[in-house]
Amino acid sequence: MQVILPDGTKLDVPEHATGREVAQAIGPGLAKAALGTTVDGRLSDLATVVPDGAQVAILTKRDDAWIDLARHTLAHVMAQAVGEQMTEEGYDPGDVKLAIGPVIENGFYYDMDLPRSLTPEDLPVLEARMRRIVADDLPLRRFELPRETALERYREIGDPYKVELIEDLPEDAPLSFYEQGGETGFTDLCRGPHLPSTGKIPPHFKLMSLAGAYWRGDERRPMLQRVYGVAFKTKEELDLHLWRLEEAKKRDHRKLGQQLEIFTLDDDIGPGLPLWLPRGTVMVDEIEKLAKEMERQAGYQRVRSPHLSKEDLFLKSGHLPYYEHDMYPAMELDNVRYFVKPMNCPFHHKIYDARPRSYRELPLRLAEYGTCYRYEDSGALMGLMRVRSMQMNDAHIYCTEEQFEAEFLAVIELYLAYFRLFGIDEYVMRFSKHAPAGLGKKYVDEPELWLRTEAMVRKVMVENDVPHVEAEDEAAFYGPKIDVQITSAIGREFTLATNQVDFAQPRRFGLEYAAEDGTRKTPLCLHRAPLSTHERLIGFLTEHYAGDFPLWLAPEQVRIVPIADRHLGYAEEVRAALDAMDVRAEVDGRSERMNAKIRDAELLKVPYTVILGDREEQDRVVSFRSRQEPEAKGVSLDVFVRHLAKARDERAGEIEPIAAPAA
Amino acid sequence: MQVILPDGTKLDVPEHATGREVAQAIGPGLAKAALGTTVDGRLSDLATVVPDGAQVAILTKRDDAWIDLARHTLAHVMAQAVGEQMTEEGYDPGDVKLAIGPVIENGFYYDMDLPRSLTPEDLPVLEARMRRIVADDLPLRRFELPRETALERYREIGDPYKVELIEDLPEDAPLSFYEQGGETGFTDLCRGPHLPSTGKIPPHFKLMSLAGAYWRGDERRPMLQRVYGVAFKTKEELDLHLWRLEEAKKRDHRKLGQQLEIFTLDDDIGPGLPLWLPRGTVMVDEIEKLAKEMERQAGYQRVRSPHLSKEDLFLKSGHLPYYEHDMYPAMELDNVRYFVKPMNCPFHHKIYDARPRSYRELPLRLAEYGTCYRYEDSGALMGLMRVRSMQMNDAHIYCTEEQFEAEFLAVIELYLAYFRLFGIDEYVMRFSKHAPAGLGKKYVDEPELWLRTEAMVRKVMVENDVPHVEAEDEAAFYGPKIDVQITSAIGREFTLATNQVDFAQPRRFGLEYAAEDGTRKTPLCLHRAPLSTHERLIGFLTEHYAGDFPLWLAPEQVRIVPIADRHLGYAEEVRAALDAMDVRAEVDGRSERMNAKIRDAELLKVPYTVILGDREEQDRVVSFRSRQEPEAKGVSLDVFVRHLAKARDERAGEIEPIAAPAA
Repeated sequence: MQVILPDGTKLDVPEHATGREVAQAIGPGLAKAALGTTVDGRLSDLATVVPDGAQVAILTKRDDAWIDLARHTLAHVMAQAVGEQMTEEGYDPGDVKLAIGPVIENGFYYDMDLPRSLTPEDLPVLEARMRRIVADDLPLRRFELPRETALERYREIGDPYKVELIEDLPEDAPLSFYEQGGETGFTDLCRGPHLPSTGKIPPHFKLMSLAGAYWRGDERRPMLQRVYGVAFKTKEELDLHLWRLEEAKKRDHRKLGQQLEIFTLDDDIGPGLPLWLPRGTVMVDEIEKLAKEMERQAGYQRVRSPHLSKEDLFLKSGHLPYYEHDMYPAMELDNVRYFVKPMNCPFHHKIYDARPRSYRELPLRLAEYGTCYRYEDSGALMGLMRVRSMQMNDAHIYCTEEQFEAEFLAVIELYLAYFRLFGIDEYVMRFSKHAPAGLGKKYVDEPELWLRTEAMVRKVMVENDVPHVEAEDEAAFYGPKIDVQITSAIGREFTLATNQVDFAQPRRFGLEYAAEDGTRKTPLCLHRAPLSTHERLIGFLTEHYAGDFPLWLAPEQVRIVPIADRHLGYAEEVRAALDAMDVRAEVDGRSERMNAKIRDAELLKVPYTVILGDREEQDRVVSFRSRQEPEAKGVSLDVFVRHLAKARDERAGEIEPIAAPAA
Repeated sequence: MQVILPDGTKLDVPEHATGREVAQAIGPGLAKAALGTTVDGRLSDLATVVPDGAQVAILTKRDDAWIDLARHTLAHVMAQAVGEQMTEEGYDPGDVKLAIGPVIENGFYYDMDLPRSLTPEDLPVLEARMRRIVADDLPLRRFELPRETALERYREIGDPYKVELIEDLPEDAPLSFYEQGGETGFTDLCRGPHLPSTGKIPPHFKLMSLAGAYWRGDERRPMLQRVYGVAFKTKEELDLHLWRLEEAKKRDHRKLGQQLEIFTLDDDIGPGLPLWLPRGTVMVDEIEKLAKEMERQAGYQRVRSPHLSKEDLFLKSGHLPYYEHDMYPAMELDNVRYFVKPMNCPFHHKIYDARPRSYRELPLRLAEYGTCYRYEDSGALMGLMRVRSMQMNDAHIYCTEEQFEAEFLAVIELYLAYFRLFGIDEYVMRFSKHAPAGLGKKYVDEPELWLRTEAMVRKVMVENDVPHVEAEDEAAFYGPKIDVQITSAIGREFTLATNQVDFAQPRRFGLEYAAEDGTRKTPLCLHRAPLSTHERLIGFLTEHYAGDFPLWLAPEQVRIVPIADRHLGYAEEVRAALDAMDVRAEVDGRSERMNAKIRDAELLKVPYTVILGDREEQDRVVSFRSRQEPEAKGVSLDVFVRHLAKARDERAGEIEPIAAPAA
C-alpha cells in the first residue's frame, strides 16, 4: 500500500504499517527522532496502523502538535504514580479505580476514585514519582482486546467506571489499551494517542491543583478526585504560563475590584447586578466623559430613554420572540405587559421617528449610555465581565446605503482610537454571519437581505484592508456584525466592541426619510458599542492595568500624607491647590504612622503619594512617590499641579518624569 | 341670645336672628354694606340663622372671603340665564334639568341636562343675559321646605337629579332653597351661602368653557353639560387670571416640549415613560453637570446602582409592603421575584454597608442620578410633570445625631442656591409629619421615633428661622420630611425639592459605624433631592422660562444663518470658533430665504441668531439678533465667542449687553 508524505511524494509501505514503520521507511534518523504522526491531519501515535492512501506526517521536536501526546501520556504517568503511592501506603491496588484522563488546554487531568483524599501536600510527592517514571523511559505498548475479555478484566479489578465506559461503546468498537513498563507497570483502556515512551516527555510539566468532579458531571453520581497538571515543550512556555496564572490571580478584577473599592455585589439585590462604589463611579464617569468627547467630535447627538416599555415596542422590534429567552420576564398590570429593556435600539428608532426626517439630517447618530438588562444564566455570571445589568456605550447610526461604507469605517476607526489609548495591541475583528438553518428562528427570515448586507460588510472590510476572520452563525438577529475580540495583558480574551448592520428593524418600525429625489426611503441602521459596557470595560481595564490605572482614570489621583499632625494645615493647602485644577486628592489625616499611611495608599494603588513634612511646608514644595514615574523631592507645588493636570488632560498612558527641581 | 364679634365684644340679638339682623344690631351702615358673614369661621350668608353664642363676623367689600358667595350666586345666575335662553328658543322649561352648581377655585360651574348642546358661541350670549340679571339686582330669598314637598316639587318639574340629591340626604336634613327674582324668577335647591342680591355681584366675571361631565362622575350615568366661569373681586385680578391662563397655554411644557424638541411620548413604549430627544438630553446633561459641580463642592461622592433588584432588598427596606401599590409589579423567574426600583435608597444603604464604616467617614454623602419607576395612576400622568420614569437628583446622607442639624440645614441651603440660580422667588417649605392613625399601615410602626425625629426637624427649622408650614399625614413611610413647593412664573404650584429624615431604614439594614468611643452606632439617614427629578425640573423650567432658557441651559445656543450660499464657508468658520469653546452652534445651510431661516430659529427659541453676509465675512465679524440682549452688528468674532462663553460659564440669568463694536 501507499501513503502520501507532506511534500506530496508517495511512499510504499507494508500492509497494516504503523506510524513507526512509515518513519522507518523514510529513514532511520527520522524514525529515531519521531514522537508521533498526523494521519489525514489528525494527531496520532507511532503505534497506530495507518490506512492505505493516507496523508502521513511524522512529528518530531521541531513540530508543535506533539505536545498533546506528551500531555496524554502524562495523564497515564500520573495515574501510575498515584497507584504506586497508594500501594506504598498499604492500600489495596484494587481500591484505586480510574475513570477518565483527557488532554485539556495547556495540560491534562485524571479523575480517580481513591482510598483516601489527596491533599496539596501530595502533589510534589506525586510529581517526583512522575519524574522518576519519565527518567525510567518506559516504552508504551498499544494492544487491543475483545470486548468480553476487556470487561472481564475490569470486573476482576473492580473498576466500575471502566466497565461502564466499555458498556457504553458500540458492540463492534475496537478496544485499545496502552501499557507502560510491562505487565508490572501500568495499563489503561485508552484511545490514545501517546508518545512511544515516557522518556520522550519533556520535563516542563507541573501538577497544579486538586478538585472534586462528579462522575460524568452528574451530581447524583460519585464524586471523584481530579488532579490537574500542565505541560509545555519548553521551560519558557511553562514559565510564561505560570507567570500568567500568577498575574491573573493578582489582577483578577473581582479581587482588585474589592481591594480598590470599585464595585460590590449583594445577595439581597441579586447576582449579576453590581453596585458601583464611589471609586468605581469616578471611573465610569471618566469613561463616559471620554466617550462623550470622542462622539461629539464624530458628530453624535445624545438621547435618553426609559429602562422599560410596553411589550408592543419589543414585538415591533422583534426582540419578542427572537430574544425573549435573554430577557427578564414580563411585569403585567392592568392587562398590559411591560418588559425591562435588553437593548436600547427600539427606543432610538422611536426617537428617529418622533418627527419626519429629511436626507439632510442623515447620517443621524443617536448615542446613549443606556443600561440594559439581560437574564444571563446564573452559571455564566462572572464579576463585571458577565453581568445582568449592563450600561452600554451605545449608539445607532441611521444612514443611506451610499453613506454606509464611510459610517461603518468611521466606527472601526473609533475602536482603533480607543485601543491605542488603552494600549490594546492584540485584537481580532470577527465578521459574524447568519446561518441559513437559523432563519425564522434566531434570525429574521429575510434570506436575500442577509446575503446582501453580508456582502456589503465584506466589501468594506476587504476594500479597506481591515484584517478580520469570518464566523458562521454568530450574527445578531437583525443582521451581520463585526465583533472585536481583544486580548488582555495576561492573555485573556474578551469580546469588547461591536458594530452591527441592521436591515430589519428600520423596516419593522416603518422608519423613513425624504430622499433628495422626493421619494420616501428606509434608512440602514448601524448598532455600535466600541467601548462595550461600562461593566465589561472596567473589568477588562482592571486586569489589563493590574489596577494601576492611568492617571486620568484613577479614582483617587493623589494621596497626601502629612508626616505629623502639625503638617495637616499645609496638607489641606496642597489638596485645595490640586482640587482647584480638578485633580482628585485626599488627605490622610489619621493619627497613624507615616509608613502605615503610605502602605494604605499603595494598597489602593493611588498613582501619587505626596509626603509633607517641615521642609516641604517651609519651602512650599512637595515630595512624592509615584507608581508611574520616579519619585521626586522638593518639587514646587505649582509645577506639580500643572504636571498632573497636563498628564490627566492628555490621558497619557506613560508620564514623562517631572523635571528635576532646581536644587 | 348673644353672639361674639371679632373684637371679642358680646352683642345681644333676638332669638333666631339671621346674619342680616346681627349686622343691623351693630349698625345700619354696616347692614347696608354687608355681603355675608362668617359664623364660627365658616362662610355663611345674611339669610342664615345664627346659633346662640356663635362667633360672627360681618363681611363687606373690604374682606376677601365673600367672593365665593358671588361665585356661588353666579352659578344660579348662569342657570337662570340658560333657562331663559332655552325658553326663548322655544324649548319647554321642563327640558332644562339642573344637577349641581358648586364654587371652585377662581370660579364656578353648573352641570345641566339641556334640550340642545351648547356651543362656544352661546357663551357671550349667556354672559350678556347674566349681566342683565345682575343689573336687575334681584334679591335672593332663602326658604326651607319639608322633604316630601320638595320631592313633589321636583317630580312635578321632572328633574331626576334634584330628586336623587334629596333622596340621598338624611331624612331629617333641612332642605333649603334660594329664590331670586320672585316666583317668576329662578329657584334652586341649595345649601348656600349666597349674596343678598344679584346686584352685589362684581362685574369681573367671565364664562370660560364648556365640557361634558358624567352625572356623579360615573361613566354609566348620563353625560351632562358643564359650563365653567370665573369671577374676581377686581378687574386686575380677573385680568391677571386671564393672562396667566393665556400664558399657561403658551408656556405649557407639553406644547413647548414638542415645539422645542425636548421630549416625546410614544404609545408603544407606554404612558408616563418619556423619551428625551437630543435637545432635551442636552438640558438634562447640563442639569447633571450643575448638580455634579454643586455636590462636589458640598462633599458628595457619586455612586451608581441597578434599576432592579430581588424582592429581598425591598422587603428589608420596607418598600414592600409600605409602598407596593406605587411600584411596577414583580418579574418572577426561577422562583425569584425581581422589582424595578421605585427609589434609590436601599441601594445606597447597601453601598454604605459594603464595608465597615468609621465615624471618621461621616457624614457620608452618596449621590446618584438614579432613574426610578413608579406606577402612577394613568389619570394622574401629565407630560413631564407626573411620569412613571423619573430620574432623580438623589442623595443619601449618613450622619451622626450631632451632625444632623448642620447637614439638614446644608441641604436647605442647597435648595435656596438653586432657587436663586433659576430665579424662583415664590416657595413654601412644608414640614410633612406622620399621622398616628397611619402607624403600621402607611408609616413604620415606631411612634416614639416619629415624635423624636419630628421634634429634631422642628428644632432645626425654628432655631434657624426657616419659614415653613406644618402638614399632618404627609410624611414618607420612613420618617418626616420637608417638601418645597414652588410657584412658577404663571402661578402653577409644584412640589420640587424634598429633604427627608429616615430613622427606620438604617436600623432595618443594620447600618452601623464605629463611634469615637469604640461602640457601634446606627447613623441617621437624610434623603434629599433638591432638583427633584430631571423630568419635573425641566417641565417646570420650560413653563417658568416659557422656553426661553438661559444661555447655559439652551440646547442650541447659536443658530448661524448665512445670507447666501457663498457665505457658507465663513459660517462654518464661525461655528468652529464657537465649537472650540464648547458653545453649541448650528449652521442653517438650507437654500431657504434668510427670513424663513430666522423664523425657524425663533420657533426653536435659539438665544442667538448670527446673520452672516459679505460685510461680516470681509471684516471677520458677526451680526446677531438675540432673545436675551439687544441686537448688535459688526462684533468681532473673538469678542462674541468670549462674551457667550462667559455668560455660559457664569450661568447668568440675564446677560449684560455686549460692548458696542468699535465703528
